[in-house]
Amino acid sequence: MKPRIDAALLPRGFEFSAVASGLKKSGLDLGLIVSEFPASAACLFTSNRVQAAPVFASRIHLRQSQHKMRGIIVNSGNANCATGAEGISVAARTALKTAWELGRYHPSQILVCSTGVIGVPLPWKKIIKAIPRLVRTRAATATAFGQFTRAIMTTDTRSKFAAAKCRIGGKLVRVLGCAKGAGMIHPNMATMLAFVVTDAAASPIVLRRALRSAVGGTFNAISVDGDTSTNDTLALLANGAGGAPEIRAGSADYRKFLGALESVCRSLALQIVGDGEGAHRVVEIEVRGAPSERAADTIARTIANSPLVKTALAGGDPNWGRILAAAGRSGVRFNPDRVEVRMAGILMCRNGRAHFFDERTAHRKLLAAHVPIVVNLGAGNGTARIWTCDFTGDYVRINASYRS
Amino acid sequence: MKPRIDAALLPRGFEFSAVASGLKKSGLDLGLIVSEFPASAACLFTSNRVQAAPVFASRIHLRQSQHKMRGIIVNSGNANCATGAEGISVAARTALKTAWELGRYHPSQILVCSTGVIGVPLPWKKIIKAIPRLVRTRAATATAFGQFTRAIMTTDTRSKFAAAKCRIGGKLVRVLGCAKGAGMIHPNMATMLAFVVTDAAASPIVLRRALRSAVGGTFNAISVDGDTSTNDTLALLANGAGGAPEIRAGSADYRKFLGALESVCRSLALQIVGDGEGAHRVVEIEVRGAPSERAADTIARTIANSPLVKTALAGGDPNWGRILAAAGRSGVRFNPDRVEVRMAGILMCRNGRAHFFDERTAHRKLLAAHVPIVVNLGAGNGTARIWTCDFTGDYVRINASYRS
Repeated sequence: MKPRIDAALLPRGFEFSAVASGLKKSGLDLGLIVSEFPASAACLFTSNRVQAAPVFASRIHLRQSQHKMRGIIVNSGNANCATGAEGISVAARTALKTAWELGRYHPSQILVCSTGVIGVPLPWKKIIKAIPRLVRTRAATATAFGQFTRAIMTTDTRSKFAAAKCRIGGKLVRVLGCAKGAGMIHPNMATMLAFVVTDAAASPIVLRRALRSAVGGTFNAISVDGDTSTNDTLALLANGAGGAPEIRAGSADYRKFLGALESVCRSLALQIVGDGEGAHRVVEIEVRGAPSERAADTIARTIANSPLVKTALAGGDPNWGRILAAAGRSGVRFNPDRVEVRMAGILMCRNGRAHFFDERTAHRKLLAAHVPIVVNLGAGNGTARIWTCDFTGDYVRINASYRS
Repeated sequence: MKPRIDAALLPRGFEFSAVASGLKKSGLDLGLIVSEFPASAACLFTSNRVQAAPVFASRIHLRQSQHKMRGIIVNSGNANCATGAEGISVAARTALKTAWELGRYHPSQILVCSTGVIGVPLPWKKIIKAIPRLVRTRAATATAFGQFTRAIMTTDTRSKFAAAKCRIGGKLVRVLGCAKGAGMIHPNMATMLAFVVTDAAASPIVLRRALRSAVGGTFNAISVDGDTSTNDTLALLANGAGGAPEIRAGSADYRKFLGALESVCRSLALQIVGDGEGAHRVVEIEVRGAPSERAADTIARTIANSPLVKTALAGGDPNWGRILAAAGRSGVRFNPDRVEVRMAGILMCRNGRAHFFDERTAHRKLLAAHVPIVVNLGAGNGTARIWTCDFTGDYVRINASYRS
């Protein structure tokens, strides 16, 4: 049986649906999220210089509708990227048709997202043809939500979702999110689509502030392979249908809402890393004692993206020397003779040199589903934490044959 | 039969030897290069903050002996890195014993290099015990040189060497080099050891200038996996035994010598990339039309280190979208709508969008041993060229089990 979200956790006033439009060879490939009421929206998009057509279109729609949206339509199987003016026109037509079918809304009230292969024209007729059915079958049920989470998958092996709740002014408020990840997951949004909906009430400005605050230690602290995609989008919609009072920035309610939002984002981020292409385990890299937070972050990311570290982790190899070497090439100045490295709780390097440990115990512990690595530079108070996954032969197999 | 260098290309006044000292489970693991006369030396070392003990020792020796060296001793199987003060002491003892056995020289006239696993104390007794035999068996023969090239190998699948000659003042001058590479090959020297010897006559200052000039488009223009090691060393010795007049900086002779040196360095660099761990093909990434040389270099390196690009290349997949996406995340500003991408000579992307090409022809061409990729940004005159290799399942297999 497929995992399901508890129906009580579905935010009020949102409906979901998904259909198989034929973009993928088989399976669901087109999904829709609809809000009964105009919802405040906050979005973060890819930092890649090359941005896909739906990213262009969605940015424009957000401005035009002053961040009040009615829905999000998402297709998998084709990224609609490097498709020129036609690509943008296709994204616009998709929004237009969806808005029309939903209730003659303005097309700018629809966000458009795509994920899949780059540089192949999006077969828009399939999408346009499927939209009426997509709109008709929408429902405020856990089943419909579950179908949506599967429709946005590409090389993901499982759907990813998370929920949280909190009380705002005595009223229950629900936060529900889902995501797709797999390859190209890197700081600052990678081929990652994530959608979070809530029945809390908040202005777009407050939402944006909360979202930016929530991503720092969650979506922006994960890395699968150092590649950043052209389509990444994280969208947050708040429709106020829960009946709670509007959340004001900086208030106690704001902090409660941020807590719920962060817990959803963290769960989704870790699910993405855990389902990184070919990944066998989640690796948590914590750097302590760095000259600054920034230095700690730089070192943690360099270790997280080192192919030699990641392949060693695939084999459960306690090769702490590669961690030390990765830290050394990060560009951060530190004294190697003060460095301490722990893998899976085992001290392996002290004062920059080998510390005795039992190789067999270490090997066994490194084969766990979650492996913490702690590097202490002994050079200050800067700390950082990054999550990544191991780098396996399966990653290569998946990516060597994605298109052909 | 093992490939051999032509005996006529051996620079005069150099001898080579190699023995199996027991550091590796089997095979040659200790090599020696000796110059009959004190030779001018120029060395470039790793830019990693974490530097191995032999790198420390060799730096000191160069200063102490004012860049006039008698020989180089190299072991494979153990990097003597993260081994603390003891590691440096071991490197010093190795130099001392070698210098003594060679002819009561000062130990600072010996360079020491190590490559292999990090963080395991170097079994120095094996080395000290093997040195007399290493010194005794040295010979100025192609066979001895061939054995040396094999003694420095780690996960290399073949030995790497190259030779060139030129005329200085009417006299023939020979330049001979060898290298080890495999994983961790990245700009600015990676787990790379390279040794170049010549019977030309030049001061250490002139040699250093030539070496720095030669590495830019050769050793510093290759990347296997973005990891930089702790032990990288490129050493150049010139003993003047060819009888040619001393090379002056900036002279016509200097340019001739530089040409020969560059051709040796380029050949070694390409051999290293071609033998990158698990590599099936050499990929040449040329970026043109960038706002500056530096921007071109940044983009070329980002593409060269993208796991998604490299795995696509392993499968011969004409996935030019990943090349575009890698360029887009490089941090360089450019207009994606002007980009042109060619893989294996086939135009695949024009004005930032798909250009029709035959997938089957492209797939076949991408399976060649040498694949050129040309990215033209249409944004200026900056150009850069980087060599890398594809990223295969074999890379993961090799690196997931290196130690355990």
